[in-house]
Amino acid sequence: MLDNIRVVLSHTTHPGNIGAAARAMKTMGLRHLYLINPRLFPDPQAVAMAAGADDLLRDAVVCGSLDEALRGVVFTVAMTARLRDISIEVKTPREAMPLLLQQAAAQPVALLFGTEMSGLTNEEMGKAQVLVNIPANPEFSSLNLAAAVQLIGYELNVAAQVHVPKLPETNPASHEQMEGLFAHLEKTLLEIGFFTTQNPSRMMQRLRRLYARARLEPEEINILRGILSVTTEYNARLAKRYLEEHSDV
Amino acid sequence: MLDNIRVVLSHTTHPGNIGAAARAMKTMGLRHLYLINPRLFPDPQAVAMAAGADDLLRDAVVCGSLDEALRGVVFTVAMTARLRDISIEVKTPREAMPLLLQQAAAQPVALLFGTEMSGLTNEEMGKAQVLVNIPANPEFSSLNLAAAVQLIGYELNVAAQVHVPKLPETNPASHEQMEGLFAHLEKTLLEIGFFTTQNPSRMMQRLRRLYARARLEPEEINILRGILSVTTEYNARLAKRYLEEHSDV
Repeated sequence: MLDNIRVVLSHTTHPGNIGAAARAMKTMGLRHLYLINPRLFPDPQAVAMAAGADDLLRDAVVCGSLDEALRGVVFTVAMTARLRDISIEVKTPREAMPLLLQQAAAQPVALLFGTEMSGLTNEEMGKAQVLVNIPANPEFSSLNLAAAVQLIGYELNVAAQVHVPKLPETNPASHEQMEGLFAHLEKTLLEIGFFTTQNPSRMMQRLRRLYARARLEPEEINILRGILSVTTEYNARLAKRYLEEHSDV
Repeated sequence: MLDNIRVVLSHTTHPGNIGAAARAMKTMGLRHLYLINPRLFPDPQAVAMAAGADDLLRDAVVCGSLDEALRGVVFTVAMTARLRDISIEVKTPREAMPLLLQQAAAQPVALLFGTEMSGLTNEEMGKAQVLVNIPANPEFSSLNLAAAVQLIGYELNVAAQVHVPKLPETNPASHEQMEGLFAHLEKTLLEIGFFTTQNPSRMMQRLRRLYARARLEPEEINILRGILSVTTEYNARLAKRYLEEHSDV
């Protein structure tokens, strides 16, 4: 679906922003960059800022007009920093990106970004089906162009994948393993004299809760029981050594 | 709530990235920037890239260590580009930011970003309660530092505008309390001879993760440290008795 999406940058002033936008696109799985009358392109600053996304710059389509850039497109979403009194729908990125993806399943669609200083003209916005406003600090809403591309690409990416980060393979301990730990812990605490000033059963309840929240894995139980064993083995080692040395005398 | 949130950048190489991150923060209503050993700061490039967010740069707190930056913080979310085989929770920004906000309602919290080239060290990540992975193109996942700050700030901003359900009354331990526990634990394990067959730093990493997942409360830290104290006292008693009896012979 992402392959049917064009990112269209209109009249970009700084070539560095084109490169940074390409980088942002590529991190989010977008590939098709259209440039309407960029002030300077191609340019080494664009390549530098692309930081490895220069393949997108090489494949970029430079156009003389918005109509040219939108040729074949069935659905265009335009960005706006302002909420103007215009009769076109204004949505959040989270609302709009699933709509764009639905359209992109079958045919080309476009994301349209204006120039750094003044955004899109009313005429340009008039060619979009939906306007999107990125929620921002009302007192400082000037997102960098590449930052806006990044956010929109991110919302698209999330909507496309309903991304589930692979959980590191977890392997929860069994009931028996947990009980084995608690029995070992209680025995050790008794042995080292921890319970002299404590109510053992209440204390064990608290410790159970604490370790329940940690969702222990079997290997972690082995570590904790290893610590408990060393705590008491130390005692056994000392006693053994004492007896050995004692008997020598 | 956003006012309780620190953005902590660890060992940032390029001052321009610090400025761009400040701009990204300010657009999303974040104000508190902490810098751990930045290579160059303050610097005119940072001011240039801040593009009007230079007030955040002026107020930035430069720290000599992560512990210093996290002083008083009760909940830390660390960014990772990799999904490592570690058993600390890895969440999406969308899952994690509401959690961060809940904690931020009452006390300071932190968002932790690593260095441009290599991200955070395992040691740094060991001090976080949650890891966040920004969903990205698996073949090109190298987000710019400021872009990552922008995305996370955006998710926070969106989450802050929806209703945040109150947490069940918890009382999370502070960073210092957690570090106090880990130092005490390490000292004790050394003393009882647990590390003879183990790599101490790797083992401490595992134990950190385990207890990070448990979200300890101050009282639970007291219990665990109580156990450690009794363990050492017990050892000291044994050693003393051994020496006494030994010298008698």
